Order: sequence, then structure tokens, then C-alpha cells
Amino acid sequence: MFMTENKILKLLYDKKDCYLPVQEIETTINISQTQVLEEIQNLKDKGYVIDSTDSGYRLTGVPNLLLPYEIKKNLHTKFLGKNIHFFKEVDSTNDVARELAREGAEEGTIVVAESQRSGKGRRGKKWISPSGGVWMTIILRPDIEPVKAPQLTLVTGVAVAETLDQECGLNIGIKWPNDILIGDKKVSGILTEVETKKGEVDYVLVGIGIDLNMDISIFPPNLRGGATSLKAELDREIQGAELVQRFLQRFEILYNRFKEGEFREILTEWRKLSSTIGKYVEVHKKGRIVYGEAVGVNKDGKLILELDDGTLRKVVSGECIHTDKN
Amino acid sequence: MFMTENKILKLLYDKKDCYLPVQEIETTINISQTQVLEEIQNLKDKGYVIDSTDSGYRLTGVPNLLLPYEIKKNLHTKFLGKNIHFFKEVDSTNDVARELAREGAEEGTIVVAESQRSGKGRRGKKWISPSGGVWMTIILRPDIEPVKAPQLTLVTGVAVAETLDQECGLNIGIKWPNDILIGDKKVSGILTEVETKKGEVDYVLVGIGIDLNMDISIFPPNLRGGATSLKAELDREIQGAELVQRFLQRFEILYNRFKEGEFREILTEWRKLSSTIGKYVEVHKKGRIVYGEAVGVNKDGKLILELDDGTLRKVVSGECIHTDKN
Repeated sequence: MFMTENKILKLLYDKKDCYLPVQEIETTINISQTQVLEEIQNLKDKGYVIDSTDSGYRLTGVPNLLLPYEIKKNLHTKFLGKNIHFFKEVDSTNDVARELAREGAEEGTIVVAESQRSGKGRRGKKWISPSGGVWMTIILRPDIEPVKAPQLTLVTGVAVAETLDQECGLNIGIKWPNDILIGDKKVSGILTEVETKKGEVDYVLVGIGIDLNMDISIFPPNLRGGATSLKAELDREIQGAELVQRFLQRFEILYNRFKEGEFREILTEWRKLSSTIGKYVEVHKKGRIVYGEAVGVNKDGKLILELDDGTLRKVVSGECIHTDKN
Repeated sequence: MFMTENKILKLLYDKKDCYLPVQEIETTINISQTQVLEEIQNLKDKGYVIDSTDSGYRLTGVPNLLLPYEIKKNLHTKFLGKNIHFFKEVDSTNDVARELAREGAEEGTIVVAESQRSGKGRRGKKWISPSGGVWMTIILRPDIEPVKAPQLTLVTGVAVAETLDQECGLNIGIKWPNDILIGDKKVSGILTEVETKKGEVDYVLVGIGIDLNMDISIFPPNLRGGATSLKAELDREIQGAELVQRFLQRFEILYNRFKEGEFREILTEWRKLSSTIGKYVEVHKKGRIVYGEAVGVNKDGKLILELDDGTLRKVVSGECIHTDKN
């Protein structure tokens, strides 16, 4: 069914400047007139604006949604995004991707949703995911030691930060370990989950959320100060499918380098994008708080703090808060 | 005498397209014909190419030397380089600057030399300083605690690295604490010396050496592999006075920010330029060697190492060597 839809979309795009006769669709794709009418209605339901006259159909508007056809069109990747599953609404894209991965979905398969009912942040925190954002999970099957899988969070962070930086040229930074900031406001988060089988990586789910085209006012008041969206910062609508395309292309390059053992070099890029290093921070973990100056990250991506008494401490994970203390 | 020379140079520059009559020089500056002849000869001795005819003098060539007039011409600084002392050859520009500072030379006074007989690297090491390089010392009198004076080495490193990066766009990096590299080869070094009086900073000497226009072949064989020059990398001659000008302008901005308490922000720029962070290094100090992964620098500019056993160590100073170990 999707195949037919894509074929019709291709015809409509190819003839964007004139009307495409119904008969031409029927004969080119070899379907009945009833099927054509149905498919055109499906496309309209998805948000495509299609003008109908006696001469045929003409595509006059494309919805700003992460529709598979729109992402794949002109996508320059080898394997990332060759299979895209789109949903109007899911509980969480990571959950759907887990099901697909268990059923054997190929490396590079992507799940995108227009909104999530119960998107997840790290450590079970709720992640507000209304329409207008990028809610996406990538299924990866890297041949690496499971202990190295969390490094993919940092690799993804570099890809997201570089993509957003190229898109908007704002003051993009990465807050350790996995938040992307514009200035000091969060615009994107990454949640990586690993499944092992017999001591080896079965699959890795890389979940990415980006606040794209939503108004800040929809965030709950307690989050409003700390969150922003690209639209709020740039005061214009962003084309989501194009942004995802650019992200996938950049991520594929970095992921290939990662698999070839270049994590050290990618970490150098991460450090340059870091807005945590050099800041005085609080790291919250399991009810305990560590305070200190973030002086660096080590080769595994652990945060190195210099505490007030001058001692050095490695932090593996936790919620990091940038403070104003100098 | 310098005043007269500068006035003649200004006249020659102003009339660069035509011949400047001797009489015009005499009347404008109010000197005798004999003095004019002497001054013109002095300028020729310094390397200026001046064409003489019955109609007068015309400047047709300017030597690629760090001559005060050439540096000051179009120099956009408030205090840096307002006084420039140029020497054909000195033992070391830091030594000359120390004498001047003791005699009360103003903040921003600069000593430049075409070559140094016994230029100094850190910890008394000899620094090869032939003609064709930038050998320069800046006298500063910041109102800061003496313990903070070494931070000026890092501030200077940022200014040199950014200047060279802008000049040549090559792979410029800073090797902790004070060497500027192109790729993995040294192109510049910085030596900061502090003099205190009654517990306060009397003056700071910031010595800077840049391998500009020399051929690599003149370096002693044991240094040849580890050193390079801008000319060798770019395969063209660099205008030294213009480069020094750009450096002074950039350094003045950073130095003012440093005095206003922005060392933390400058350190963020230093980290982005660092080629040490993320590398496995050896640090040599007083016959002892520490091995480890350079994971960051703290807010004082100390290097943080993660040793092979996973412990963290702060290194205050020493000779740092980047190794190939990953």
C-alpha cells in the first residue's frame, strides 16, 4: 500500500508544475481508478494539499511533517532511514522501535512520530512530546562491546548539535551527557538504550527528541524557563523533514567513524561543542549531589569534576545542572 | 632621531606614487639637506628601497622586517605597541625588556629583534631564533595577584593561535601549556616571566617566538622533525609586520578581558584550540615522567591526567609530549 502511495507521490512531484491526468496514474502504476481516488484521499488526510480539476491532480502543498516520503526524497545515506515507520501518535518511539528490533528490523530502521503520549527522558523522567517536534528512534546493530554502547549517546549528541548549528547558527552547546542547548535552554535530548544477547550487543535504540516548531507556551510552567524550541529562537517555522535528512546524513558519517574506532576523534568534537566543561555544576544521582568545576571528560565520556577542596572525581552518570557560581 | 625618520617615512608613504623633492622634506620637517641625506641613508640601511633622481626620492620597496614604523602604521590598539624597540640582534628580547621594565617602561611597551643570540625557551632551554622569525617581548603591568600571572601564558596562546589560524587556516592547535602547533609540529612558543615587588606584580614579560619565514633546513637536525615555519607550511613569504599587528590587536582585546576577570571564558577558547586534551601524553618534570590521558584543564590552567590505573592527577607544569598511544 505504501509502495503505491510513494509511486503516486513521485508522479505528483515530477509533474508539480502541471496537472497529472488520472488515466496517467492508472496506466503508469497499473491500478484502478477507484484505487487512485482512495490513495489521493489518503494523501490529503496526511496533510498533502492536492488540487483536483478535470485535467487531473496537482500537488500544491506539502505538510511540514516527518513523513517517510519527504525524509527519503533526496536522502544521501547508505543505510540510515531506508526503512522509516511513521506514526501520528505513539506511547514512545523507543518502545515501538524495541518491538521492531525484537522482530529483526534492520540496522538503520527509523521510527518517527508526530507526537508521543509518554515520551521518556533519562531515568524514567517524562518528556513532553507534542506535535511540532522531532520524536525519532534509530535502530542500530553495531558490532561493539556492550560497555561501549553508551558512547553512542555522545556520538549522537555531536550529530544533533552540528545539525542544529548548521540550521540556525545560534549558540548551540552540549550539556553533559546528552542534552543539546541553545544558550542555556534545552532544545533536544537523547536517550540511548542497549539490549544485549549472550554478552553481545543485540541492538541499540538511539532516541532523539528535538523541540522544533512548538510554541514555548505549551510547556508546563516548571519547564518553560529551561526549555526552548528552534521556532521560538528563530521566529520562523523549520522544515522538519529536511532537518531530519541533514541529521541522518551527518549521523551516518559519524556512526561509521565510530564503528571504525574513531570515538577518540569524535570526543574531541564533542568537547568543542560542550557547554558543560569549564562550568561549575551540580550532578544529581540517586538523591546525592556532587558539586564541582567540570574540568573535562575522559576517553569513555565520563565527566571529570574538581571539587571545592581541589580533589578530582569521575562521574559516570547523573543529572547535570549548570550553576552560576564562578 | 626616530621621530625624524618616522616623519620622512610618512612623507614617502604619502607620496608613494611620485617623487618627493628633497626641499619639500627640508621645509616640512625643518631639517637641513645634510640631515635628509643621512636619514635617507639610514632608511636604506634598514632595508627600505628608495629610488633617488633629480626630482627627489620615491619609496619603491619595504623590507619584510618587524620595523616599528611598519608595525605601528594602521595599528588599531589603545596601548599595546605604542612604544616599540627594534634591534637587529639581541641576546634575548626578554632580557632587554626586563631592563626597560626596571627603568619604568610603560605597559604595552614592546621589544622586537630580527634575531636572538640566545633566545630562551622554558626552563632555560635554548630557543633557536634566526632572522625571519618573530622574536618579541611585551611588557605588561596588570593589577592582579602574582599567582594569576601564569594565566597570561594561556591568554597569549589563544591570541597567537587565533592570529595564526586567521593568517593561514591550517590545523593550528595549542600544546599544553604554551606551544602553538601546526598539525603536530611546533611553530611558536611563549615564555612568561613575572617580577613581583612587595608581594604585588611589578611587571610581566610575555615573550613570543614565531617561526615565520625561515627554511626548515636551518633548524638543527634534532629539532627539524618537531618544528616548522609558516613559510614551510604555506610555501609563501608572510608579511611579519602585518602579522604582528593583527596579533597585537587580538591580544589587547583578550588582555583587557583577562583584566576584567574573564579568564574562565578565555580558557573555554583555549580548550577549543587545545591539541593536548584527548591525547595520551608524557609530562616530563625534574627528571620524572608522568604518563596518562589528558582529559582536561582546570580553571587555573593545570593539566588533568587520567593515569593508566584510572586515577586522576593534576599537573602544574612540565614538558608535555604527545604520544601515539591510543
